[in-house]
Amino acid sequence: MRAMKNYLLTIAYDGSGFHGWQRQPRERTVQRYLEQTFSRLFGQEILLNGTSRTDAGVHALGQRASFHADIRIPIGRLARVMNNALCGREEGSFALSPVRILEAREVPEEFHARFDARGKRYFYRIRPSRDIDVFRRSYVYHVEDDLNAGAMDRAAKMLIGTHEFKSFEASGGTPRESTVRTITDARVYAGVESCSDEIIFDVSGDGFLYNMVRIITGTLVEIGRGNRRPEEMAEILEGRDRTLAGHTAPPYGLYLAEVFYGQQTGLG
Amino acid sequence: MRAMKNYLLTIAYDGSGFHGWQRQPRERTVQRYLEQTFSRLFGQEILLNGTSRTDAGVHALGQRASFHADIRIPIGRLARVMNNALCGREEGSFALSPVRILEAREVPEEFHARFDARGKRYFYRIRPSRDIDVFRRSYVYHVEDDLNAGAMDRAAKMLIGTHEFKSFEASGGTPRESTVRTITDARVYAGVESCSDEIIFDVSGDGFLYNMVRIITGTLVEIGRGNRRPEEMAEILEGRDRTLAGHTAPPYGLYLAEVFYGQQTGLG
Repeated sequence: MRAMKNYLLTIAYDGSGFHGWQRQPRERTVQRYLEQTFSRLFGQEILLNGTSRTDAGVHALGQRASFHADIRIPIGRLARVMNNALCGREEGSFALSPVRILEAREVPEEFHARFDARGKRYFYRIRPSRDIDVFRRSYVYHVEDDLNAGAMDRAAKMLIGTHEFKSFEASGGTPRESTVRTITDARVYAGVESCSDEIIFDVSGDGFLYNMVRIITGTLVEIGRGNRRPEEMAEILEGRDRTLAGHTAPPYGLYLAEVFYGQQTGLG
Repeated sequence: MRAMKNYLLTIAYDGSGFHGWQRQPRERTVQRYLEQTFSRLFGQEILLNGTSRTDAGVHALGQRASFHADIRIPIGRLARVMNNALCGREEGSFALSPVRILEAREVPEEFHARFDARGKRYFYRIRPSRDIDVFRRSYVYHVEDDLNAGAMDRAAKMLIGTHEFKSFEASGGTPRESTVRTITDARVYAGVESCSDEIIFDVSGDGFLYNMVRIITGTLVEIGRGNRRPEEMAEILEGRDRTLAGHTAPPYGLYLAEVFYGQQTGLG
């Protein structure tokens, strides 16, 4: 008789070679890559419930996914066994996997990585420089202008609170009941704080609309360039119209950093 | 009538998606990618003389290549025009090119980027950690052991001078008249000096045999692990036998950093 348990994974991935998280028939996606590898590894069909359907090219430092399976491997060894299976399964020339299981834990039977999520944190990396760094081309948004990080930070802080975010939603996403979201923290930092030549936009909230972080980032870049005033951020929110906001920043500067769960799950 | 001039390029590239520098019929190589792009751009066949035939997966921060062509674009704008042509020609999903022309200059007619080179500098990035960073998997050699960087540095310094490097030459390279080379500088640094969690092996010399830097690096890693004494480096040199040296470190931690030219070229 099968003894099904429920597992929760914390996953990091370099999204540059993937067509996003979500399983698709003929595309190389993170979910499909993991499900195929783990189904072979455990000799049973593994279906993952991922927290966030990251777009093609978007990265993750703390994606989460839960799944039910009958696995006899001690929980303390599970992540290592999974990572060993991922290494060497790559199609490219090098064996190291673009996806890594950072943690595996057992969770209550009814836990679901997406439905139980209470919030997420993203960050977005921007590099203001005319000299494109080829090694960061898939990891950072190169903007060939000076950017005023202070103005960007003032604008970002106007997003904190519960607002109607219709102006920052792209069409084409899953239909949502409401476009009201609560941003719990938003800031832009650079220089010594970012420990690099990059500007970081760091944002946490209870949920994000389709392309919301990327549209906010594009708007912040336009504010950083001086083409818009920081105060416009509040006006764009109030306008509830996508055409008021800035351009959609490219996917490759975006990182899903953390997923928050309620206290009752013990996952913080 | 054509007015052929001789040009020298300084080139950076992310080697992870390439089958090395050297043009090959059906493989995606850096040379082939540049020659195809520039031949289209200038409406004439462009053939590059690259300084170093970097292996598949090896990166460059300062590769050099010279070529003769009849180009009417002012030299001060040439690198920018070339980079604009490289952007958007990529097969992948993102437009930024994995190759970038850092500088273009005119050189005397008889100058040749490879034959006139007086030396090169390479560095090799090693990350001693059990936690593989997916974002550095194609850029750093992950070693899952603690490494003694001080011991590695002592061993590296034994390479400085003119030696017979037969023990550090892989078979399969272009036949060489001599396996004597002069290493002008070699050091290993870590911590504050490397500004990261990586150990850097930094080496300059008048020339390098096939896989020489990678075999030296593999040997240094074994010394860093404590499996070999630093003093063995001198013994390996004296032995003139490849089987005495350590393993060949993977290509993806290796960077061609600089090419040196003689004073008469004005290129330093």
